[in-house]
Amino acid sequence: MRVLLTGGAGYIGSHTALVLLEQGHEVVVVDNLSNGNRVALDRVEELTGKTITFVQADLTHAGATRMALAGIDFEAVVHFAGLKAVGESVDQPVRYYRTNLASTLTLLDLLEERGITRLVFSSSATVYGEPQTPLIAETHRTGVGLTNPYGWSKYMNEQIIRDAAATRPDMSAVLLRYFNPVGAHPSGRIGEDPAGIPNNLLPFIAQVAVGRRQQLAVFGNDYDTVDGTGVRDYIHVMDLAEGHVAALNHATCGVQTYNLGSGVGTSVLEAVRAFEEVSGRPVPYQISARRNGDLATVVADPQLAKAKLDWQTTRTFTEACRDAWNWQSQNPTGYEQTIKVVIGTPGLQRTADLTSKPR
Amino acid sequence: MRVLLTGGAGYIGSHTALVLLEQGHEVVVVDNLSNGNRVALDRVEELTGKTITFVQADLTHAGATRMALAGIDFEAVVHFAGLKAVGESVDQPVRYYRTNLASTLTLLDLLEERGITRLVFSSSATVYGEPQTPLIAETHRTGVGLTNPYGWSKYMNEQIIRDAAATRPDMSAVLLRYFNPVGAHPSGRIGEDPAGIPNNLLPFIAQVAVGRRQQLAVFGNDYDTVDGTGVRDYIHVMDLAEGHVAALNHATCGVQTYNLGSGVGTSVLEAVRAFEEVSGRPVPYQISARRNGDLATVVADPQLAKAKLDWQTTRTFTEACRDAWNWQSQNPTGYEQTIKVVIGTPGLQRTADLTSKPR
Repeated sequence: MRVLLTGGAGYIGSHTALVLLEQGHEVVVVDNLSNGNRVALDRVEELTGKTITFVQADLTHAGATRMALAGIDFEAVVHFAGLKAVGESVDQPVRYYRTNLASTLTLLDLLEERGITRLVFSSSATVYGEPQTPLIAETHRTGVGLTNPYGWSKYMNEQIIRDAAATRPDMSAVLLRYFNPVGAHPSGRIGEDPAGIPNNLLPFIAQVAVGRRQQLAVFGNDYDTVDGTGVRDYIHVMDLAEGHVAALNHATCGVQTYNLGSGVGTSVLEAVRAFEEVSGRPVPYQISARRNGDLATVVADPQLAKAKLDWQTTRTFTEACRDAWNWQSQNPTGYEQTIKVVIGTPGLQRTADLTSKPR
Repeated sequence: MRVLLTGGAGYIGSHTALVLLEQGHEVVVVDNLSNGNRVALDRVEELTGKTITFVQADLTHAGATRMALAGIDFEAVVHFAGLKAVGESVDQPVRYYRTNLASTLTLLDLLEERGITRLVFSSSATVYGEPQTPLIAETHRTGVGLTNPYGWSKYMNEQIIRDAAATRPDMSAVLLRYFNPVGAHPSGRIGEDPAGIPNNLLPFIAQVAVGRRQQLAVFGNDYDTVDGTGVRDYIHVMDLAEGHVAALNHATCGVQTYNLGSGVGTSVLEAVRAFEEVSGRPVPYQISARRNGDLATVVADPQLAKAKLDWQTTRTFTEACRDAWNWQSQNPTGYEQTIKVVIGTPGLQRTADLTSKPR
């Protein structure tokens, strides 16, 4: 199968590209490189010994995207592209809505124009809002109590895809609601490289362990949980990547929705201890006040994906920490970019390697 | 006050333009004329003896809109622009989402760039989904049980505006949830001119009465209502227009939400009889099966707008029928466009009047 990955140069996209290539599929990546990094794809090619077709384009520009993808065939799409920083979305709502909604609309038109029927969408457990039950199943209500434009944009995109799919009876759309992706490929060659201050717990912990940040702020230790700190469901990014391939393999007509989570809850302090153990480094932290909108416990019920996609997580949180640490210690400042400059006329060329930090 | 009306050449926009001009405000209209009609604005100018600044631009194109509005000042915006045919939205969801969401995003950026703080948005009672109470107040839940992309796009736009307003403490955004606008200006010079088959009851009835359509289909006569047919809250478009001016006059910082409705329910058969009476024409109808998603009764609780905006409806449903009939019988095929062609060189000109039907 030839699969287009939008936002395929990002954290989850690059790991999914790797798993697809390893399973014998072909991969086309379209990315505007606003958060993704071309080097991640170079490394995926290195790791797999296969090549990726890369197209730099911004999906919010329909015409430019159509032109950039002209003549490039694919049979299915995994739609990762979108902005994802929760705090930033509160400060820049219009930018978040435009980017995340317009990219989906461009893609849906493109799929219809080309008669492509298979779509997998990167949604988020954030669409569930405040959990009504300890384990969250796909039947849990959505769209109530969402606290930021990032979450709203995921919720809106789910609805837009449902409505678009309703007009195409042959379409298969799979909405994957991620819990908290963590870890990295065990090689340590690809991993999460957040721009600026990490939004998510594990990259932050990793940056503290590696000495890039002083300490971790723990928001609240008086929740009704095992040690008072917030409990979340962390999923190893390689498990998550495999979940996408399972979704592509088990696509059926209509719209399906699946949680991609481990079903296991881990508290902030448990995460700190696990990371200290695998890294052998201290992770200093300070307890601060609760953040508005934060919840005590958010854990996936992963049964539906197990039953219908024949997929479940196989990697532990400790393995995720080990792999995240492996990535972070090998790449303390994230990706470094090797720019090959070709000098001279055809037939008489020298290649110079310049190493720079892309951001 | 100088007020920009997006979609101001449409049904509600043109009536609001008229009321604003009559109250001494200045009006700028931006419209792509996809559904609106330039003739409506000519007639508003005729009726008021005042001029409107008209800009033809498509708000879904941010750059083009910015250029088209360059050098044109305004202090407040009423945002009517958007596609509004419920059935069409089910068939063309991507087009509906793109048009209705992108236009709002363009506008929000424009307001921020220019430091404009006052926005009134055309929302709809459709955001309430299935009513949980006989009278719907603004506190009624929203976003549950919406049945079409049109309704979803209104719901999404409300959220987008709320999130954008949260980043601008000086902003005043008013979300007006319309019930069912009907009627026309009493002059019969402006009114509702739906493209194609009317989506709404009263224009359909009017077209049957005037002989343009054979009969009315009544969807269901076994609802738990006065005569078994669906009961809705109809609001005279002149009352609705005055509601917008009240919202502009009573703007305060933050986001406010108001129902614009009459608080009175009218059944389909009551509407038929009222229209037969004012028109003196028969309105043949046939009972058909219920439509999916249709509800027995949807009536506004109009108290909040009365208390906070000092506004309430003053026109009856019978007056709305009379005014709709006056419009329909004077303009049996809607707007006719007079194109003035100026021939010759300056100083030596003749004017020819060509009458054509714009659509």
